[in-house]
Parts: sequence; structure tokens; C-alpha cells
Amino acid sequence: MASHRRVIIASVPDGPLEPGHFAVQSVPSPDCGEGEVLCRTQAFTIGAGQRAGLQGSASYAGAPVAGVVMGGTGLAVVEASKSPDFKPGDVVVGPTGWDELAAVKASALRRVDGAADASLHLGLYGTNGLTAYFGLHEIGRPERGQAVVVSAAAGSVGHMVGQFAKRLGCRVVGVAGSAEKCGVLTGELGFDAAVNYKAHDFRDQFRAATPDRIDVYWDNTGGAILESALFCMNTFGRIVCCGAVSAYDGAKPAAGPRGVPGLLVNNQVRMEGFIVYRFADRYDEARKAMAQWVAAGEVQTRTTEYRGLESAPQAFVDLLAGRTIGTTIVRLD
Amino acid sequence: MASHRRVIIASVPDGPLEPGHFAVQSVPSPDCGEGEVLCRTQAFTIGAGQRAGLQGSASYAGAPVAGVVMGGTGLAVVEASKSPDFKPGDVVVGPTGWDELAAVKASALRRVDGAADASLHLGLYGTNGLTAYFGLHEIGRPERGQAVVVSAAAGSVGHMVGQFAKRLGCRVVGVAGSAEKCGVLTGELGFDAAVNYKAHDFRDQFRAATPDRIDVYWDNTGGAILESALFCMNTFGRIVCCGAVSAYDGAKPAAGPRGVPGLLVNNQVRMEGFIVYRFADRYDEARKAMAQWVAAGEVQTRTTEYRGLESAPQAFVDLLAGRTIGTTIVRLD
Repeated sequence: MASHRRVIIASVPDGPLEPGHFAVQSVPSPDCGEGEVLCRTQAFTIGAGQRAGLQGSASYAGAPVAGVVMGGTGLAVVEASKSPDFKPGDVVVGPTGWDELAAVKASALRRVDGAADASLHLGLYGTNGLTAYFGLHEIGRPERGQAVVVSAAAGSVGHMVGQFAKRLGCRVVGVAGSAEKCGVLTGELGFDAAVNYKAHDFRDQFRAATPDRIDVYWDNTGGAILESALFCMNTFGRIVCCGAVSAYDGAKPAAGPRGVPGLLVNNQVRMEGFIVYRFADRYDEARKAMAQWVAAGEVQTRTTEYRGLESAPQAFVDLLAGRTIGTTIVRLD
Repeated sequence: MASHRRVIIASVPDGPLEPGHFAVQSVPSPDCGEGEVLCRTQAFTIGAGQRAGLQGSASYAGAPVAGVVMGGTGLAVVEASKSPDFKPGDVVVGPTGWDELAAVKASALRRVDGAADASLHLGLYGTNGLTAYFGLHEIGRPERGQAVVVSAAAGSVGHMVGQFAKRLGCRVVGVAGSAEKCGVLTGELGFDAAVNYKAHDFRDQFRAATPDRIDVYWDNTGGAILESALFCMNTFGRIVCCGAVSAYDGAKPAAGPRGVPGLLVNNQVRMEGFIVYRFADRYDEARKAMAQWVAAGEVQTRTTEYRGLESAPQAFVDLLAGRTIGTTIVRLD
């Protein structure tokens, strides 16, 4: 009987994530049930937000369970189909998980242009790109000439947020965790400035990089960076709460940033959390717009790629440790 | 030469406020300059937010200075006028400060109906009432049937917020600091429930009082009550940040509530600070609406009144200690 490999959650992490929290399994290949599609995974993406999904009640994705396949969004080729909507050879994006061969409900799959690169399908047109698109344009709503600051700016969402804000004519400052990342931001990605949050004089550098203070702060991190931003917000500033990487890789929620709520009042700041699914009925609109920006050379995608299923746990750990740039992708092809 | 009395800031508080931070002075009566109006103060109101005004850079009102008259909004009778807009005998509301006789710029004064009570002019139609009006209707925007929780609910702003939310058909829970206050809230003011935050099992009581969780949380306090609310917000909930009483009477901003920003993301919560001056061009509209509600018996005002100028420092201390209910007013008549 044919078999394939997949990665399961071996144990639910209670502290920092380690590769040992996962295990590679060889299992019999699944049948394709009625309404299902058998997907041969070519690549999947890992997002920092998935760490929250391993944290039980702290996550919106529900409690994690050991022994199941690790979830994730993959790019796949249809191998067999018991759905009228897909046929063998179709290229699809959907919840394959960390699995070489997955039987997926047809309703969860989306057919895509097989000629385009995985970095577009799994990055820009995937959850990360959509998150950047709707969070910036619908929650942050920066105007031309305003100051936008992005945390985890070299990350999968952040590097798109910054480029989208540049398109709008904003002055964009990125916060990232290494000189290399900062160089990518101010180099090929066109950010106006970048600050390394690991620098000993981060707060001074941060203030120097935001001479006109901040109109829109994109928060991917929470913690000390959020606190620094809070103290620099302009009147009527908006803080887009997209995630809290700083809190993912531990068990308990830490104390919140100083200045909440006092500084929100004094500067009449709005702070709003969102999950991209809120905008699910507008994904097509967003993908169309972003495809035009790519075609026009206004936006580019960055990826850090790993090869082979067994590299996925380390890729996840690297991502959480800030060792990746752009969208983290594991290629199986 | 005629003299009158006033209260000055004797020293800027560096910790909890005490009556000794103020001093009563007898000074020569002021001249009425061109464009000014000489106001004989009948009553003035004290708000908890004024404590922030004594805290230098932590406040939006600018840095405090020792030796000047304590600021505040008063109800007064015009004694002399060098403005064509006012004449002796007019009843006005404006920035008299804690002063028996003040020369005030005509542009800062508003003529009011002398027959109405000080509790209306200084409470409902003053900054406190306007804050409740715009904060609830423009920032919180609760809908019929939704759950609204108000902190400092027996305070000058809170007791109005709760009544306004009841008018809208919401289920309203107040948080206050004594059994007496809770009794006033659920009694004459019509709140559905009230919780004493000083109770040893406050968090349990709070959860029990919010079985449908919270759609709009009105935050007057920050700190532990805000944190409790954060953990109970419904999806798309709104937190109206109106002030941070818990942080006023100390020097440094404390750590923020746990759950920021993680819970804002998970529940897609919006948290927004505001200052009522943002809505200055709509005050007349608000006063007209609130006057109708009073006439219809839908809204009532509560006050705690002190008599005599020299009682003002103690009134302020009592207010910050949570010993007053409703709008705190010092009467000089």
C-alpha cells in the first residue's frame, strides 16, 4: 500500500517551541472521500500566528491537540478528485497541512494559476498578504504624507504592509531584529528608515526615526515595541493590532504596555485588533489589486525557503526566533 | 479696596493629592479688562480628570504650575462686563476656576438659563455630560440589546453613560467602589446590575454580572477593572477610553493591562481614547437632546455638593478617593 510522510504535533509546547515538539510520520496514503480532493503538496507556508494556535485558549483557532497533523496552507497539485470542481493536474491552494499528500474538502480549496510562483500564492495572495491589505487599508487607513511604522517589518505580513504604505505616499519606518533585515527594508523594499529593536539604544533610535511621530502603527509584536510606539503616537493615530509575536512563544499573557489607557486618551488614539477572515468576501478584490501592483513593479515579495518536509519544524523555530525574512515557505517539490 | 477669596495650587502633588496642596488666598478684586466679563461664581464643578492636569506631561492640559488659581468650570452671575455679549445679571458658565470673583474672557463664556439647576449646567450640559454623550454615541456606539459595562459608574460621567445606554435599550452593568454606590446605580438610576470592585471576589462577581460578555466597555479607570473587561469582550467589542482614574493619583504610568494587544486581536476589539473637545461643534445638538431626555424623565442627574470655597480641596480629595457620587459641585452661594 502506498504511503507518504507528514508532520504531526508530537506534544503541545509549554514554553519556547522546539523542533522536538513535532515528529515526521510515514502513513498509508489517504483515500479521497466524496467531495474531497487528493492534494500532492508542493510547498506550504508557516506564519508566526500559528504559534498562537499551539497555545490553547490564548488563540482564536481553538485548543491544540497532540497527535494530529500540523496545520498550514499549501500549494498543491490535484492527484485525484471526487468533486466536480477540481480535476487531476489542477493547481490549488488550501489547508493541506504539513503533509505530502492530503485529502482536503473541495470547498476549502481555491484553484490558482499554476504558472505563478509559490511566493505569490502562499504570500501576497495568501493570508499574509490579505492581512496586510485589509489591515492597512481598512483598519489603519493612512493618508498620503502620514508617518507609518511597522513592527516585525521584515516578516511575512510586515514587509507587505510597508510596501503598501509606500504606495500610498506615506513615510514608512520599519522595526526589525537585525542589521541585515533593516538593510533589506531600506534597500530593495524602499522603506524610508529601519530600526533594529535589538540595538542597546533602540528607544533613542526609534524616536530619531520618527521625527513627525506616528500616525499609523502596525503592531505585529506587542510588548516593548508597542510601548515605544504608544509614546510616539500623533493625535487621532491608529494602532493596527495584527498579532503579538512577543507573547506567542510563552505560556501566559504578560503585563500590557505602559500608557494603556492613559496615552490612548491623551492622544485620542484608536487601537484595533482584527482577523483577516472578517474580510473574506472581499479577498478577490484584494488579490486583483495586489496582482496589478506586482505587475507594475510597485510591490515585491520576499521569501525564506526551506527544502523538504523534515525541515518544517526548524523553519518554524527559525521564524519565531526572527531568523527568516519575508514569507517562510517549505518546498516539497 | 474690595477683596475676594480664591484657591491656588500651593504645590504640585508628587503622590496622592492632599488638601495641603492647595491654599485659600484673599486678594484684591480684579479689574474687568476690555473683552472681559467679571463673574461672581455661584458654584463650580470638580472632575477626576483635573487630577491628570496636575501631573505635568502625563496630561493633555499642559504642565501644572504652583501659585496659580486652580482651574475649573463655574456657574456665575455677571457683575460687570466689557463685552457687548454680556450684561450684569446674566447667568453664565465658564472657566471661573476656584475663585469667588473672576475676570473671564467673554469668548470663553456661555449664557445659560438662570432658572435651571447648577447640577444641569455643570453636570449634564457641562463637560461631563457631553463626554458621556459623545463617547457613548460616537465612540462606543452600542446597539439595542447589547451589553454595556461602565466603570466609575457612580461618577460624574459614568452615571450618565449608564442612563444613556439604558435609553438605547442596552443591558447595563456598572462597576463602582461601594455598596452604597451600587445601590444607587441599580436603584434610582436603573442599571441592570452593579458590581463593587472592592469586593474580594470582584472578578467572579464581574463575570457573573456579564453572562453575555461585553459589547461596549466604558473605561474611566484603567488598571484592574479594564483588565477584567478585556477578558470578557465580545467579538467586535468597543472599549471607550475616557480616563484613567486608577493612574491619576500617582506620578508614573503603571504597567498596562494584560491582554493588550493579544485579546484585542483574538476578539477583534477596538479600543479608542477620546477627548470631548473633538466634538465641540456639536455641543448644542447634544445639550438639546439631553434637555429633552431630562424633561421626559429618562435621565436624572446626581450630585455631591460641598459648601464654601474652603471645602474645595477636600471635595477634590474625596472625589479621587471615591467618596462622592455623581457630579461633585462646590457651592459658593
